[in-house]
Amino acid sequence: MVSGQDGAARQVQYEERLVQALGADLVLVGDEVARYCRDWHGDVTTGAVAVLRPRSTEDVAAAVKACAALGLSVVPQGGNTGLVLGATPDDPARQVVISLERMARIRRIDADDFSAVVEAGCILSEFKDAVAREGMFFPLALGAQGSCRIGGNVSTNAGGINVLRYGMTRELVLGLEVVLPDGTIFDGLSTLRKDNRGIDLKQIFIGAEGTLGIVTAVSVKLTPEPDQVATALLGLNALDDAIALFRRARRDCCDLMSAFEFMPPLAFVLAHEAIPDLPMPISGDYPAYVLMEISGSGLVDINDLMERFLGAVMEEGLVADGVIASSKAQARNLWLFREGMNEGQAKRGPHLRTDISVPLSRLADFVRDAEAAVAAALPDCVNVSYGHVGDGNVHLNVLPPSDLAPEEIAARIYKAKSVINAVLDTYHGSISAEHGIGRLKRPDYDARLPEVRRKLLTALKTAIDPTLVMNPGCQLNFERNS
Amino acid sequence: MVSGQDGAARQVQYEERLVQALGADLVLVGDEVARYCRDWHGDVTTGAVAVLRPRSTEDVAAAVKACAALGLSVVPQGGNTGLVLGATPDDPARQVVISLERMARIRRIDADDFSAVVEAGCILSEFKDAVAREGMFFPLALGAQGSCRIGGNVSTNAGGINVLRYGMTRELVLGLEVVLPDGTIFDGLSTLRKDNRGIDLKQIFIGAEGTLGIVTAVSVKLTPEPDQVATALLGLNALDDAIALFRRARRDCCDLMSAFEFMPPLAFVLAHEAIPDLPMPISGDYPAYVLMEISGSGLVDINDLMERFLGAVMEEGLVADGVIASSKAQARNLWLFREGMNEGQAKRGPHLRTDISVPLSRLADFVRDAEAAVAAALPDCVNVSYGHVGDGNVHLNVLPPSDLAPEEIAARIYKAKSVINAVLDTYHGSISAEHGIGRLKRPDYDARLPEVRRKLLTALKTAIDPTLVMNPGCQLNFERNS
Repeated sequence: MVSGQDGAARQVQYEERLVQALGADLVLVGDEVARYCRDWHGDVTTGAVAVLRPRSTEDVAAAVKACAALGLSVVPQGGNTGLVLGATPDDPARQVVISLERMARIRRIDADDFSAVVEAGCILSEFKDAVAREGMFFPLALGAQGSCRIGGNVSTNAGGINVLRYGMTRELVLGLEVVLPDGTIFDGLSTLRKDNRGIDLKQIFIGAEGTLGIVTAVSVKLTPEPDQVATALLGLNALDDAIALFRRARRDCCDLMSAFEFMPPLAFVLAHEAIPDLPMPISGDYPAYVLMEISGSGLVDINDLMERFLGAVMEEGLVADGVIASSKAQARNLWLFREGMNEGQAKRGPHLRTDISVPLSRLADFVRDAEAAVAAALPDCVNVSYGHVGDGNVHLNVLPPSDLAPEEIAARIYKAKSVINAVLDTYHGSISAEHGIGRLKRPDYDARLPEVRRKLLTALKTAIDPTLVMNPGCQLNFERNS
Repeated sequence: MVSGQDGAARQVQYEERLVQALGADLVLVGDEVARYCRDWHGDVTTGAVAVLRPRSTEDVAAAVKACAALGLSVVPQGGNTGLVLGATPDDPARQVVISLERMARIRRIDADDFSAVVEAGCILSEFKDAVAREGMFFPLALGAQGSCRIGGNVSTNAGGINVLRYGMTRELVLGLEVVLPDGTIFDGLSTLRKDNRGIDLKQIFIGAEGTLGIVTAVSVKLTPEPDQVATALLGLNALDDAIALFRRARRDCCDLMSAFEFMPPLAFVLAHEAIPDLPMPISGDYPAYVLMEISGSGLVDINDLMERFLGAVMEEGLVADGVIASSKAQARNLWLFREGMNEGQAKRGPHLRTDISVPLSRLADFVRDAEAAVAAALPDCVNVSYGHVGDGNVHLNVLPPSDLAPEEIAARIYKAKSVINAVLDTYHGSISAEHGIGRLKRPDYDARLPEVRRKLLTALKTAIDPTLVMNPGCQLNFERNS
């Protein structure tokens, strides 16, 4: 235990040393650290010795070395939009946040090479817009894209709505620049599409949530911009039909389907609670809804493809009702239901958010079983299941009654999570499909981690970060090699 | 040094111990090891203490443990079709080949889940055929597919002709089962499409060429079988036009292009030398040829797409002449030029084979520069450049006059390689786009390896295989931790 006075003295010393090593311009302390030490949902507020804001890769290297020299550890942070506390310090007196927000330069967009090189701190939507101005497309698309930063996307191997066609972030990455725990720079920003020179080291940093190093820049694949997009909202008689429809669409629409999201009937209610004047696109009520998008460029007539596909499946009864957006504005409105549903949930107060994946063929069964288990255990809570059918990824959220006392709400959230995870384990599913582990899911991850994996992860971590400088407490708790 | 007599006695002892530990059924010795100790091209013949042929994952684990207990190291082998000596022992008195050929079972094909689980020893074409019988498609396609085995494809991160649409083997893998250097089993055969539970350990084994463990089974993504395929052979006025055409096709044909190969005029000459009665599909002579394939399933009319695309680019003069295959047999014949060209090269005797990648936008420049450099340095040799435009991957092969003495041929091959690599280095390209490093390319890889990477690779190797049991001499030479 350190007395308060000792702690304060040490804090002053740390601040002085960091400013000395890096210059005052790079170092935030005091009240200014607060916004870097609150998570996206506002559930957790913590602190840090300082926040360092490097302007270059060399600054990042110097920052890591300065922290290591002081015996401080490092929590790398991008847009701070993560959902699992991967970038939220949990040991304020001994952790320093390194924010990449000032390293936001797009170093190169090369349309002829179908590639770009971008720094970790660039906001995803700004990068997507810049790429679009060159007639190209960077497929990563997720709710937080106006705030999240590309380095965080890489470090969490972000998913989103276009995964079924373009893959996770991992599949979009051609190369990485990483500052390693010892402050050396891994310089791997090649844009080669194929490179089988030995073990592909960049893979270990993708999805590592900053536990093995700090991603400072990324080279990525680009595709031609899809100048035709067809969006449809469909009413179905059962979630099983959504799975069957996906399989059918996967075949009939070749590889041109770019999104296939399912939503429950409650989606419209929740969306209206958030956006009251949102027009209702389908008249009837259906047990399941699908938001489907086909897109492409060039000589394929995407709208015609959507019309012929829906014509066939509606005639067969696989789809009960549907509407195809006739304009970009209408397509935007259809997506607003999907997004408004999330806002509506937030308005109902604290609730359980999950991020589950199961084998695609078992998605409907899992949702049925898990919702039934929650209903039996917590009859006063409301289930909201939605997600990405093509990826077997469901966000089964559970909303407790909002008029309960905070501790009762917390108890229901905890109980709901346990009930859902118990069902999930029988499906051999994942407790984190796309959000990562961070600190929030560490106990559930840790409890399910097979010994062989733990041994490999420990070997990997201690080989690359023997003094445990990088993001301790994230993903797993390791013990320092003595 | 061991005397011959000591060596023979030790060999007998090893054989006895391996049979004792594993049973005679699993152990081949004497003359029977020969076919496992010759490389695919027949350039290298070596030997091994024994060849072990496990029938199960547990057998593989027992085999690894038995070898380690005897102080022997292990060279894992699939179909032995590799081109870089990754599966060819180089220390016959201390290495054991573990062949996966008996682990050839397809454990599951689940069309509803778009996935399959297959053992490492399954021959690629047999797996593709089995998948096709379920109406599905496994996209990996390469010349050796009738002999190579899926575990080798994973361990070398195999490429091939469909990479531009479906990615390298890495992008097709959902999960792995691996026997680790200590004989424990990494059990990761999930078929989840999305799984962000911590660092993705399977990635380190893909492309590791058996240096970190032995892949014993794989779960992979399947896609619907493309029941429409349009194949065209095109004559172009320059290789630059091939690059421009690719960019155009990438946009106009959405993501439906599945192959885009370029070939030199000499391709037809070489193919005819191998297959004399092959019909000539295009009448004129052109400086560059492209073999292009578009494919898909369902509602998109693929032939119509190809016709409209070629109509436009021929009118614009980007393509000088072209033929679209009107039947499967005709499409097969067009591909025979591509394959016959390789056979024709083999018939001309020993020659340099390269496997180079450069940024896509610089492919034509590189071929021009590298061919000019070879022509200047070796005026009596013939250049043959062909490859995968969409991946920036060129096989620039150099054929010495076949009537030279063997040592003069070897000298020209060595010289050609040096000349090409010197040009390649100025392009920041890769000496191994898709074949791997193995033992053949180790010196060239080693000479170009940045210190930061070497340190990371050493840390990784010694963390996972501290006693250097797994495939020593492949990729890099490591020194045992003392």
